[in-house]
Amino acid sequence: MRIALLGGTGDIGEGLALRWAFHTDHEVLVGSRDPERARTKAEEYETELDSRGVEAKVKGFANAMAADRADVVVLAVPPYHVADTVESIEDELADTDVLVSPATGMKRDEDGMHYHRPSAGSVTKLAADAAPEGVPVVGAFHNLAAGRLADLTADLGIDTLLVGDDPDAKDIVRMLAEEIEGLRALDAGGIANAPEVESVTPLLVNVAMNNEGMHDLGIQFR
Amino acid sequence: MRIALLGGTGDIGEGLALRWAFHTDHEVLVGSRDPERARTKAEEYETELDSRGVEAKVKGFANAMAADRADVVVLAVPPYHVADTVESIEDELADTDVLVSPATGMKRDEDGMHYHRPSAGSVTKLAADAAPEGVPVVGAFHNLAAGRLADLTADLGIDTLLVGDDPDAKDIVRMLAEEIEGLRALDAGGIANAPEVESVTPLLVNVAMNNEGMHDLGIQFR
Repeated sequence: MRIALLGGTGDIGEGLALRWAFHTDHEVLVGSRDPERARTKAEEYETELDSRGVEAKVKGFANAMAADRADVVVLAVPPYHVADTVESIEDELADTDVLVSPATGMKRDEDGMHYHRPSAGSVTKLAADAAPEGVPVVGAFHNLAAGRLADLTADLGIDTLLVGDDPDAKDIVRMLAEEIEGLRALDAGGIANAPEVESVTPLLVNVAMNNEGMHDLGIQFR
Repeated sequence: MRIALLGGTGDIGEGLALRWAFHTDHEVLVGSRDPERARTKAEEYETELDSRGVEAKVKGFANAMAADRADVVVLAVPPYHVADTVESIEDELADTDVLVSPATGMKRDEDGMHYHRPSAGSVTKLAADAAPEGVPVVGAFHNLAAGRLADLTADLGIDTLLVGDDPDAKDIVRMLAEEIEGLRALDAGGIANAPEVESVTPLLVNVAMNNEGMHDLGIQFR
């Protein structure tokens, strides 16, 4: 399978790119608005993987070209860029592709981090609204600490939650998630249930801020 | 310490009453609007504890009388009764008492359970707004499955999150939480951070609904 990480030069994109290249044989494509930057980052990821004994090909492209080549397109961009990123690649998306939305809206104040719910209802819904007719969107990978994901020596032992209205698309993303060692995918229902999933991310930040020795947190349901 | 569970005849009240009576030497007072019902439930709890080899005294009272006798008062009532319950006991509360808010607002639709955020910002804030000047409120025990708590043979191995603006009050609730075997208390910051804590509860329902074999879920941060 070919996975494009749009915004794959950012934190969460880096973590997912490294993990998929490390744990699976899927082809990982790093996308960026700036193709030169995507290529540089892809080379960095290859070097990191090589140092862990994995010879993986990671290629960098402009977002649209990465999306065009991929079966699964992860929108690893800030929430306010989700809609325009989808619009910028819509001609490259086929009905057989799956869009994945890992972003969440957050706002920091003096008390901590808060869920900043977009008027669409959630960032996942915002992505679904922007997606071309027939292209399914699955919300996933919201609650993963980028630093822990990118550290290939770090054990995960945590869960990621899936929301989506297309069962086949959700199955594909579940498979991709569970191929990452130590990650379990749980179904949280339809896209209407995305706000409760996305609002776990600021909670993780608040718990890390307020408890000594806790950082790069994830959650496990039990 | 004396702990009053107002609405202690309901699900979460029952779970907390049984756990504190089982694992600690604190005096557990079950409160209800109907003192007869409180006494009947207290006797049921004593019978259950006795069957587990624990001879604990659990007493039932009208809410105001339970609150009057207690050091820590848990508002184990539905969210829409939090404010009037606090008002009904305000003459019984001293500055040295601690109010605990475990309730969360939820609304079910065809997709699942959703966080129904009160206009005060959170149920914990609603309790804090209703509390007499000087009486601290701590949000805690939101994310515990009542059935699992009430089953004294069930292992917990989960976390509960604390939110509060009074560090001393939070320390008391942390101690009470951690005296329950298998429960870890984590600090999630001030009351302004309560919405992200309370919205985990509908998420637990959604995950249980959508994943075979999962029920009475809790979470662990790791």
